[in-house]
Amino acid sequence: MSVESTVVEMAQKARRAARRAAVATTEQKNDVLGLLAEIIEERAQEIQAENARDLELARDKGLSPAMIDRLTISDNVIASMAGGLRDVVKLADPVGEVTSKEVRPSGIEVSRVRIPLGVIGMIYESRPNVTIDAAGLCLKAGNAIILRGGSEAFHSNMALSACIAEALEKVGLPREVVQLIPMRDREAVNVLLKQEDLIDVMIPRGGEGLIRFVTENSLVPVLKHYKGVCHVYVDSEADLEKAQKISLNAKVQRPGVCNAMETLLVHRDVAERFLPACGRAFQEAGVTLKGCPEVRKHLPWAEAATDADWPEEYLDLTLAVKVVASVDDALDHIAAYNSGHTESIVTENQETARLFVQAADSSAVMVNASTRFNDGGELGLGAEIGISTSKLHAFGPMGLEELTSRKFVVYGTGQIRQ
Amino acid sequence: MSVESTVVEMAQKARRAARRAAVATTEQKNDVLGLLAEIIEERAQEIQAENARDLELARDKGLSPAMIDRLTISDNVIASMAGGLRDVVKLADPVGEVTSKEVRPSGIEVSRVRIPLGVIGMIYESRPNVTIDAAGLCLKAGNAIILRGGSEAFHSNMALSACIAEALEKVGLPREVVQLIPMRDREAVNVLLKQEDLIDVMIPRGGEGLIRFVTENSLVPVLKHYKGVCHVYVDSEADLEKAQKISLNAKVQRPGVCNAMETLLVHRDVAERFLPACGRAFQEAGVTLKGCPEVRKHLPWAEAATDADWPEEYLDLTLAVKVVASVDDALDHIAAYNSGHTESIVTENQETARLFVQAADSSAVMVNASTRFNDGGELGLGAEIGISTSKLHAFGPMGLEELTSRKFVVYGTGQIRQ
Repeated sequence: MSVESTVVEMAQKARRAARRAAVATTEQKNDVLGLLAEIIEERAQEIQAENARDLELARDKGLSPAMIDRLTISDNVIASMAGGLRDVVKLADPVGEVTSKEVRPSGIEVSRVRIPLGVIGMIYESRPNVTIDAAGLCLKAGNAIILRGGSEAFHSNMALSACIAEALEKVGLPREVVQLIPMRDREAVNVLLKQEDLIDVMIPRGGEGLIRFVTENSLVPVLKHYKGVCHVYVDSEADLEKAQKISLNAKVQRPGVCNAMETLLVHRDVAERFLPACGRAFQEAGVTLKGCPEVRKHLPWAEAATDADWPEEYLDLTLAVKVVASVDDALDHIAAYNSGHTESIVTENQETARLFVQAADSSAVMVNASTRFNDGGELGLGAEIGISTSKLHAFGPMGLEELTSRKFVVYGTGQIRQ
Repeated sequence: MSVESTVVEMAQKARRAARRAAVATTEQKNDVLGLLAEIIEERAQEIQAENARDLELARDKGLSPAMIDRLTISDNVIASMAGGLRDVVKLADPVGEVTSKEVRPSGIEVSRVRIPLGVIGMIYESRPNVTIDAAGLCLKAGNAIILRGGSEAFHSNMALSACIAEALEKVGLPREVVQLIPMRDREAVNVLLKQEDLIDVMIPRGGEGLIRFVTENSLVPVLKHYKGVCHVYVDSEADLEKAQKISLNAKVQRPGVCNAMETLLVHRDVAERFLPACGRAFQEAGVTLKGCPEVRKHLPWAEAATDADWPEEYLDLTLAVKVVASVDDALDHIAAYNSGHTESIVTENQETARLFVQAADSSAVMVNASTRFNDGGELGLGAEIGISTSKLHAFGPMGLEELTSRKFVVYGTGQIRQ
């Protein structure tokens, strides 16, 4: 069978399975998740043996140690997949929630009821644990899912997918509720992206190249984020101790993630008091600073920032630093370079904070807190399937609710339009 | 200046204007809407003179009477545009609404706050009143908007757009909050659809060809509906009097709109009692019936339906009719042919109604009410900017709330991630 007919057939099966998943009870869905956690623990050795095949190929191909690390299903990864599934069991089932209800002048009773999105397509790169995390969340929200993992994790994903199928069937749900594309051809992705009548949303997770490819080629709507160019703005009325603690945490605690700070903006009035000490702390933490001319007056050892630095997502221990003249100046810089991800202001002035919160156009705006709090767990969503930096449907971390839609349900007694 | 640079520059101006629109007060926005209503009424003659130029060209081109009718700005259309704006003034401002608030274990206070989508691109065909209706709703939700009307309504739209600019400037908002693309080149649409960094969402309104073109060529997310293939299912336990009244209303009251019924499904057990009388009523209303073989046993005068009839959106006085064996059979038919728009069941059995409501996968599911109630006004949304038949972001009629997103606002006291 051709790649195209295989993928189209999978999408058709997913569409049918989605009808079953949508009406599955909370108990059934939780049973699948609990059982899957057990199966993964029981089969840890088999899963790791398949993972070893991927790791061997990865080493032969000369993949970087960081890539090898992401690809490895260690005992910790096994435990974290099982634990993650058990956490999702505890989350409230969003399906069926009535978000509003009113009787209209015509006499009809109108409710808005939460429903699954339907069929979700997930395209991701190296981490095989995404196979389990994504399947668990999508299923809990009543969706069917088609998974397309990275080719370097092929054997690992096939092993995990077999565990999922077993859990689904034991509970009496069709195995097609969660399907992994069982081939490595890139063509499969192209076919998947054209199934707008069968798939409701695509969620790509990975590098910017993958996300752009999906966005440019998909007829199915896409939930995505390209990158996180997060800013911390230290206001003239900042508590400078908080400012230094937050800046360091936002840059250093985990520099390789999208909610880490990439640019620090400092109000001119506090630059002289703030920059020398904070700069030293960054230096001790091994951070390379790239400063505007005014920053370099205070920190002569900093490298000179160029125009290329302001939109840059370093994802490492490098930080752009700029002195600004006012909160408006900071907001103008953010408007010009932000990626819609996270911005933070450090200030003790409530009015300035309010202005910043209203005007900064990102999925999360923090006052006196680290940008690193833009995370589904920290913000109270439970687990997250990804993060959206475009405003349609979801803006910020996406949890169970973001994997649903709402429909109108109307009860009448024979009403017609006049 | 080239078409490309003109459109890109408009999008950049819209992006800047969106920052102003987002922080405009409710009073400012309502002032613009009220003033615009007055200006439209005062300038009715000038607007109609420009409209006359479009109508003359349309007649020269031999446009159909229906097209000419849609294009005409009659006194009624003037009154309805002004009245529509005054209705939007009365709607609550969605911007700034706090939809949830909680203090997390880390001590941060997390709120979700409603914000405008940003910049909305609207591409539409002949009706010039859409220029006013869309601008009013988008502005009330704090958005900037770029309008691209049909080339046949060019002069009318330019006249209306001048009224909008005047109202914005009188209230002190930038005229770039609402911009009409001042050229007829089709190339302008292509350029618009590529501005994913500047435009947050595209809303196309018009025929299926336009919608498909936009979906296939847009890098910007699209809110849309292709068509409405709405079903009414008459259950074995239906009140047949209600069933006939609802069926007739759903087909005949306004057959050219997307929430009109296109296929009637009748349970076998009531076919003999229901079809002859209902068929007669349809015949008297001038409706052509296309029936399955079993329907034609009861209504020998009906035409024979073919496979091409079930997915068809007739938009006129034609109706496909099919006998089904059960509610599951009806739901299977709907799953195969529906367009995600509206489905209705007529039944006195609450359990059957509940099953149908849960399983029918459309933006609105009605029990004992006409499909014609799937309308923003009837469902309580106030005005609507269109209807979405895909589930992402909005499913069903889109009102003010659907022209917004939500961001996370976090207040801390110096919290950092551990």
